[in-house]
Amino acid sequence: MAKNTVVLAFSGGLDTSYCVKYLKHDLNLEVHSVLVNTGGFTKKELQAIEEHAMNLGVAHHETVDVVDEFYNKAVKYLIFGNVLKNNTYPLSVSAERVFQAIAIAEYAKKTGAQYIAHGSTGAGNDQVRFDLVFNILTPECQVITPIRDQQLSRQAEIDYLKAHDVEMNWEKARYSINKGLWGTSVGGAETLTSHQPLPESAYPSQLVKKDISTITLGFEKGEITSIDGQEMEPVEAIVILHELASQYAIGRDIHVGDTIIGIKGRVGFEAAAPLILIKAHHLLEKHVLTKWQQHWKQQLADWYGMMMHEGQYLDPVMRNIEKFLEDTQGNVSGKVHVTLAPYQFHLTGVESEHDLMNSKFGHYGEMNSGWTGEDVKGFTKILANQTKIWHAVNEGSRNEEPVLKGST
Amino acid sequence: MAKNTVVLAFSGGLDTSYCVKYLKHDLNLEVHSVLVNTGGFTKKELQAIEEHAMNLGVAHHETVDVVDEFYNKAVKYLIFGNVLKNNTYPLSVSAERVFQAIAIAEYAKKTGAQYIAHGSTGAGNDQVRFDLVFNILTPECQVITPIRDQQLSRQAEIDYLKAHDVEMNWEKARYSINKGLWGTSVGGAETLTSHQPLPESAYPSQLVKKDISTITLGFEKGEITSIDGQEMEPVEAIVILHELASQYAIGRDIHVGDTIIGIKGRVGFEAAAPLILIKAHHLLEKHVLTKWQQHWKQQLADWYGMMMHEGQYLDPVMRNIEKFLEDTQGNVSGKVHVTLAPYQFHLTGVESEHDLMNSKFGHYGEMNSGWTGEDVKGFTKILANQTKIWHAVNEGSRNEEPVLKGST
Amino acid sequence: MAKNTVVLAFSGGLDTSYCVKYLKHDLNLEVHSVLVNTGGFTKKELQAIEEHAMNLGVAHHETVDVVDEFYNKAVKYLIFGNVLKNNTYPLSVSAERVFQAIAIAEYAKKTGAQYIAHGSTGAGNDQVRFDLVFNILTPECQVITPIRDQQLSRQAEIDYLKAHDVEMNWEKARYSINKGLWGTSVGGAETLTSHQPLPESAYPSQLVKKDISTITLGFEKGEITSIDGQEMEPVEAIVILHELASQYAIGRDIHVGDTIIGIKGRVGFEAAAPLILIKAHHLLEKHVLTKWQQHWKQQLADWYGMMMHEGQYLDPVMRNIEKFLEDTQGNVSGKVHVTLAPYQFHLTGVESEHDLMNSKFGHYGEMNSGWTGEDVKGFTKILANQTKIWHAVNEGSRNEEPVLKGST
Amino acid sequence: MAKNTVVLAFSGGLDTSYCVKYLKHDLNLEVHSVLVNTGGFTKKELQAIEEHAMNLGVAHHETVDVVDEFYNKAVKYLIFGNVLKNNTYPLSVSAERVFQAIAIAEYAKKTGAQYIAHGSTGAGNDQVRFDLVFNILTPECQVITPIRDQQLSRQAEIDYLKAHDVEMNWEKARYSINKGLWGTSVGGAETLTSHQPLPESAYPSQLVKKDISTITLGFEKGEITSIDGQEMEPVEAIVILHELASQYAIGRDIHVGDTIIGIKGRVGFEAAAPLILIKAHHLLEKHVLTKWQQHWKQQLADWYGMMMHEGQYLDPVMRNIEKFLEDTQGNVSGKVHVTLAPYQFHLTGVESEHDLMNSKFGHYGEMNSGWTGEDVKGFTKILANQTKIWHAVNEGSRNEEPVLKGST
Repeated sequence: MAKNTVVLAFSGGLDTSYCVKYLKHDLNLEVHSVLVNTGGFTKKELQAIEEHAMNLGVAHHETVDVVDEFYNKAVKYLIFGNVLKNNTYPLSVSAERVFQAIAIAEYAKKTGAQYIAHGSTGAGNDQVRFDLVFNILTPECQVITPIRDQQLSRQAEIDYLKAHDVEMNWEKARYSINKGLWGTSVGGAETLTSHQPLPESAYPSQLVKKDISTITLGFEKGEITSIDGQEMEPVEAIVILHELASQYAIGRDIHVGDTIIGIKGRVGFEAAAPLILIKAHHLLEKHVLTKWQQHWKQQLADWYGMMMHEGQYLDPVMRNIEKFLEDTQGNVSGKVHVTLAPYQFHLTGVESEHDLMNSKFGHYGEMNSGWTGEDVKGFTKILANQTKIWHAVNEGSRNEEPVLKGST
Repeated sequence: MAKNTVVLAFSGGLDTSYCVKYLKHDLNLEVHSVLVNTGGFTKKELQAIEEHAMNLGVAHHETVDVVDEFYNKAVKYLIFGNVLKNNTYPLSVSAERVFQAIAIAEYAKKTGAQYIAHGSTGAGNDQVRFDLVFNILTPECQVITPIRDQQLSRQAEIDYLKAHDVEMNWEKARYSINKGLWGTSVGGAETLTSHQPLPESAYPSQLVKKDISTITLGFEKGEITSIDGQEMEPVEAIVILHELASQYAIGRDIHVGDTIIGIKGRVGFEAAAPLILIKAHHLLEKHVLTKWQQHWKQQLADWYGMMMHEGQYLDPVMRNIEKFLEDTQGNVSGKVHVTLAPYQFHLTGVESEHDLMNSKFGHYGEMNSGWTGEDVKGFTKILANQTKIWHAVNEGSRNEEPVLKGST
Repeated sequence: MAKNTVVLAFSGGLDTSYCVKYLKHDLNLEVHSVLVNTGGFTKKELQAIEEHAMNLGVAHHETVDVVDEFYNKAVKYLIFGNVLKNNTYPLSVSAERVFQAIAIAEYAKKTGAQYIAHGSTGAGNDQVRFDLVFNILTPECQVITPIRDQQLSRQAEIDYLKAHDVEMNWEKARYSINKGLWGTSVGGAETLTSHQPLPESAYPSQLVKKDISTITLGFEKGEITSIDGQEMEPVEAIVILHELASQYAIGRDIHVGDTIIGIKGRVGFEAAAPLILIKAHHLLEKHVLTKWQQHWKQQLADWYGMMMHEGQYLDPVMRNIEKFLEDTQGNVSGKVHVTLAPYQFHLTGVESEHDLMNSKFGHYGEMNSGWTGEDVKGFTKILANQTKIWHAVNEGSRNEEPVLKGST
Repeated sequence: MAKNTVVLAFSGGLDTSYCVKYLKHDLNLEVHSVLVNTGGFTKKELQAIEEHAMNLGVAHHETVDVVDEFYNKAVKYLIFGNVLKNNTYPLSVSAERVFQAIAIAEYAKKTGAQYIAHGSTGAGNDQVRFDLVFNILTPECQVITPIRDQQLSRQAEIDYLKAHDVEMNWEKARYSINKGLWGTSVGGAETLTSHQPLPESAYPSQLVKKDISTITLGFEKGEITSIDGQEMEPVEAIVILHELASQYAIGRDIHVGDTIIGIKGRVGFEAAAPLILIKAHHLLEKHVLTKWQQHWKQQLADWYGMMMHEGQYLDPVMRNIEKFLEDTQGNVSGKVHVTLAPYQFHLTGVESEHDLMNSKFGHYGEMNSGWTGEDVKGFTKILANQTKIWHAVNEGSRNEEPVLKGST
C-alpha cells in the first residue's frame, strides 16, 4: 500500500463525500474512508455510510468502533473530574473528535498511508483537533484538507458531485447536528447570535413525559455501575440514562466559549446523561472526599477539560492528571437519588459507606462528644493569629479606619 | 462606660434572649444588645426585636443597618466572582455573619466595652466567624459565649427565662431559618441526613406563579443596574428580583460542604436573586472577557468565596483579590435576557457593546477575512511542536503502544 | 499492657528526660520511650540514648529506624516535586517530625497503650505535628504534653531531675540543632531577630575544602541512583553527597516562614545534599518534561510541601498528589553535571535520552526543517486573534490611549 | 506619509542593516528605522546607530527611549511578583522585546505607515513577540520579515550589503549578546548543547572584586528607593546596583525553557541587579505579607511572567494581575541587608515596621502571652477533625495498613 494512498476521516456528509471524489479524481489517490463511531451511529446508519462510501468509489471503507476506548480513556475521566466547560458544557463533541482523529491516525499508521485527510473547514475547532493529532501521531503523513483549502460554496460541492454522477440527499439541514456517546451538539441560525436561544424544535429529543419520576444511580469508584439497582456496564448505563432522561427534555443548554482559534463561539447541546451523571457524581464526592481533595480535583479537572476541548489530549500532562483523578476515586462509591421532571432534574441525596457526614462524628449544628467549645475557642484563637498580628502591626496604616465606616 | 459592659450580638431568639438575662443577672454586666441587619428584617421586625430587648432589660439596644456596606464590600465581589460554593451555594448566610460580627466589633470598639458576646453553639460555623472577627478586631475585649460554654438544653433555657419572668414565643420551629439580602438558609430535620431532600413546605417562598415570563437584566461594570430597562440601585434590584423570582420557587437547593471545624454539613437554601444574578453575570462575562481573564477570575473567586465562608474576610489577601476582581469588570456591561418558569430559569442570551463574539471578526464555523486556512495550518503545526517532539523522543517507551489499542 | 502505659516520643534531651520522670513518678505510668531515627543518629548515639532511657527508669525503650520509609514515603516525593518551602527550605525538620509522630503512633497502637506523650513546647510547629498525627491515628489514646502544660523553666526541669538523682549533661547549647537525613536545622540567638545572619560557627559543617570539583549525578525515573557512575541506593547517595558537599559548606541558608500557629518564624539550616539534588533534578526536568507538566507539578508540589510542613501528611489528597508526581517521573532519567565550590555549587548541564532539546528537532535560534517562517506567521496570527479582537472591540474605552504614552 | 512607508525595528546589526537596504531597494519603500532603547545603549552607541542608519539610506531614523515606561509598566511588576522564569531567569530579554515591539507599533500608528518590519529569524521567540504585538496594535499594517522569509546565510547578507556599498564591521561575534535594563543574555556555542556551561569569558562582566562587601537596599511599597541610605529613582538604583554587583560576577546562570514555538531552548544570562533585587524583595515580603498573600502572589506572578515571556503582554488579564500585585505592595517597605562576594550574594536580614515577625506577638519557639498550650490543643483537635473522620470512616479500606509498615 502506502504511496498514493490517503486515509480520509469520513462522515458520509456533503463535505467528506466531496473529499472522496476530489482525492480520487483530482489528486489520483487511493482513498480509504474511515468512519470512527464514538456512539452516535446505529448499525443501520453505519451500513448506509459504508454503502455510500463504496458508491463514491473508495478503495476501502473501514468502520472503527471506539466507544469503549472513548469511555475508558476520556469519558471516565470527564466524570471523575465533573468536567463542564465554562461550568456548562460536558465537551460532548470536542472529546469525541479527538478520539476520532486518533483512530484515523492509527489506521493510517497501520496501513502505511502517505496521506491523511479530513473535511473540516478553516473556521472551527475541529480542524485544529484533527491537525494536532495528525501532526503528533503521523508526522510522516502529509495532511490534505480540501474543504479548508478550496473554500468552495455548498453549491459548488454539489455541482462537482453531480458532475461525477453522485446521488445523495442534497438538502441542507437548518442545524448542524453532531451526535455521540457523550451528547449531541446543535449549531446554526440562533447560535450565530449572542442573544437568541435555540427554538424547542431544534433539539433532537422532544419532551414526551410530563410526570415526575425518581431513579437511583449506583457508583463504584467513581464509575456508574447501576441504575435502580440493576447492574450494568458504564457505557450501557449512559445509553439507558440518556433514553430515560431525554424524554423529559433534560440537559439542554447553550455553551458560550473561546474557540481554539481565539474567537468566541456559541453552540447548543443536549446532554441529559452527561449532566445528570456529572452532577450526581459531584454530589457523591462532596460527601466522601476531603476539602482539599475537592479543591485540587477541580483545578486539575478544569485544566484537563480545557486541554481536551482544545485537542491537546496527547500532552503527557494529561496522563499525569488522569492518574491523580483516578486515585481520588477510591471511595467514590454509593447511591445517588435523582428526580426527573420536565426540563430539569434534582438530586435528592446520597448514601455511601464512605460518607464523611457520618452521625458518629457529630452533626453540623449539634454538639457531640468529638470536641468541646473550648477546643473551638483555641482553634479560632490560633487561626486568628496571623491576621490579628497583621492588623495590630499595621494599625495606623490604611487599615485603621473602620472596616464598615459609618455603619451605625 | 467600658468596664462591666458587654456588647451582645442579638437576634431576639431564645439563645440570645437567654444570653441577655444570663449576662445581666449571673455575670452582673451592663448589656448592650446589637442587632445587625444585613437585609433580612422588616422595619416592623426590627422594632419588635428592640422592644423585646428592652423588656429583657438591656441597658441599650442598637440596630445597625449594614445592608449597603454588605453589598458594597461583599455581595458585589461575590457577583463579580460568580461565587457559588461547591458550585451550588451563594454563601447566603456565611457572608452576612461576617459582616454582623464586624459591625458588633466596631460597636464594641466605639463604646469601649470590656466584653463582647455571641449566642452561637459549639457545633457550627458561626461561632468561628464571630470568634475570628472578635479576636482580630477587638483583641482587648474578652469574648463570652454562654450557649457554647453551658451547653444548656432548650428546655433549660426556657425554664431559666421563665424564672426571670420573660414572656416570649417558646415554640420551636421545625427548621432553623436565616434570612438576609443574599438569600435564606433552611436547616434541620432532613438536612441532618445525607439522603433526604427538604419538603416543599420547608421553603419560605412557595410557588404562586405558573406562567412563563421573561426579564432583562442590565449590568454596568459587573453590577446590576436595571431590570427591564428600569434603572435602580443594586440593592434594590436584588430585592425586586427576589420578589419576582421567588414566586416561581426558583433558587432552592441543598448545599453540602465542609464546615470550618472539619465535619461535613448540609443546609437547604432559597436564593432566587443570587442564583439568577450570578448566572446572568457569568454569561455576560463569557462574551466580554478573554479566556485567561475568565480562568484567573475563577481561581481567585473560588478562593475568595472559601475564605469568606470560613470567616477569613479580614485577611489582607481578600482586599488584593477584590482589586483584581474589580479590575476585570470594566467591560462587563450589557443586557442579559432571562426566562422565569416554575422552579427554574433559563438564560436566553446577552447584548453588549463589548461582546467579543462580534460578527465583524468572524463567526464560529464560518470562514471570514480575519485569517486563512493556511494560517490555521501553521498555527496547529507550531502548537503541535512540543508534544510531537515528546512523542518522537520517547518512542519506544511506554508510549509506543497505540493510544487506542485494538481499536479496529 | 495497655492501661497505665504511656508511649513517649523520646530524644534523650532535657525536656523528654523530664517527661520520663514526670510520667513515671508524678503520673504513675509505665513509660515506653521510643526514639525514631530518620537519619540523624549514629549507632553509637542510639545506644547512648537507650542507656540513658533505661537509667531514667523506662519500662521499655524502643529504637525505630524509619530512614527507608522516610525516603520512600516523603523525601522521594519532595525531590520529585523540587520542594523548597518559600523557595528556600527543603523541609529538613518538618517532614521528619511527621514520620517520627507516625512511628510513635503506630507503636502505641501496636502495644495498646492508653497514653501517648511528646515533649514539645506550646510555641512551635512540632506540637501541632505530633498532636495532629496522634489525634488522627490514635484517637483512643489520651495525649500528654508535660512541657507544654507546665511551662517549666529550664532550671526547674534540671532541679526536678537532680532531685530524682538523674545525671546528665546540663549544659545548654547556644543553638538548638536537629539533624536528619534531609538536613539539619539550626535555631536560636540570631534567628530570633529579623536582621541577623547566623555566624559561620553556628553551622555543624565547616568549610574544609577550597578547591573546585565536579561530580555527576545519575537519575532514574526521578530518583538519584548513582554518583560519578557508581550505582547506589538513594538513601546512600544522599548520605554520600552530603559528606562531599558539606566539606564546601554548601547548602546553608535561613528560612523565613509562616508557622502553623500563625506567627512568622526564622530558622537556619544546612542541607547540602537536598539543595543539590533538588536543583539537579529540577534542571533535568526542564529538559524532559513538557511545559504544562512542569506547570502543574509546581502547583501540586508547592501545596504538597506546605501540607507536609504543616503536619497534614495524612490528608488523602497527599496520596493523590504523590500519584501525580510519580507519574510525571517516567522520563526523568539521565545525568546532571555539578560543580562544587566553597559555599556554592553550579549545574553545568544534563545528558538524557529523553531530552526534548534534541538537535533532530531544531535548535533554538536556528532554522530547521520542522516548520517554516510561514507556519510561525500563521501561528502568531491565530494566537493574536482574541487579544486583537478585544482591542478592536474596546477601542474608545480606557485602552485607546497608547500603551506607552509619550514614549517618543 | 503612509503609503509606501515602512517602519523597521532597527538594531544596527547585520540583519536589520540588510533589511534597510532590501526594503528600500528591492521593495522600493521609504524606510523609517526605529531604535527602541530599553536601557542597553549608551548615548554614544545610540548616535553611532543613528549615523549607521542614515548611511544606509533611511528616510528617517528615530531613537525612542522607553526605559522609564519599561520600568513602570513591566520591571516594577516583575519585581513585585519576584518573577524568575523556571525559577531562574528574570526575563532579561523577553520583557524588553515586548516593549520594543509596542514602541515600534505606536510609532507606525502615529506616522500612519503602511508596513511594519522586523529582522527576526523564524527560529526563535522574538519573531512571535514582534508579530503578536503588531497583529494586535497595528492590524492595518502589513508585517514584512525579510530575514525570516528569505532565510539568507550570513555571507549572502554580507555580499548583498557590500554590493550596495555598505561598510560596517562584518565580524561575527562568538556569542549573540542582548543588553538591556533588566540584564544581558548570552547565546551561542555551548548554549546549543544540553550539557556544556558557558566559559567565563563569554560573560560581558568579569570578576574584578574579590573582597566581601555589604549593602543595604531600601524598599518603599515594593520599589527599590535607596542603596545604603542614599535615595534614588528605581531605574537609577538598578543601574548602580548592576555596576556594584557585576564586579563580583554575580547573577550568571543558564536558563533552560520552553520557547513559544514548542522547542526547548537554553540561554545564558548575566543579571546581577535583577537577581539581587528580586531575592531581596522576596525576603522582605516573607516578613510583611500573610501566608495567603504570598501564595496567591506566586500563582499570579508565575503566570504573569510566562505571559510576558511569550509576548502576551497585551491580554487584558495582565492589567488585572498588575492591579493585584500592586495592591499587595502597600506594606512592602523596609531595608534588606545584602552581602556581595565573588560569584554569589547572601541576604543577611531585613528591617521593617511592617514586619509580622514582631517580638510583641511572640517568638517562634518561645512561649508568650498571646495564646496558651490549651489553645493549641484545641486548634489541633479541630484541625485534625476531617482527616480523623476520614481515617475512621475508611478503616478497613486500603488505609487500614500501617502508614509505615514494618517500621520497627
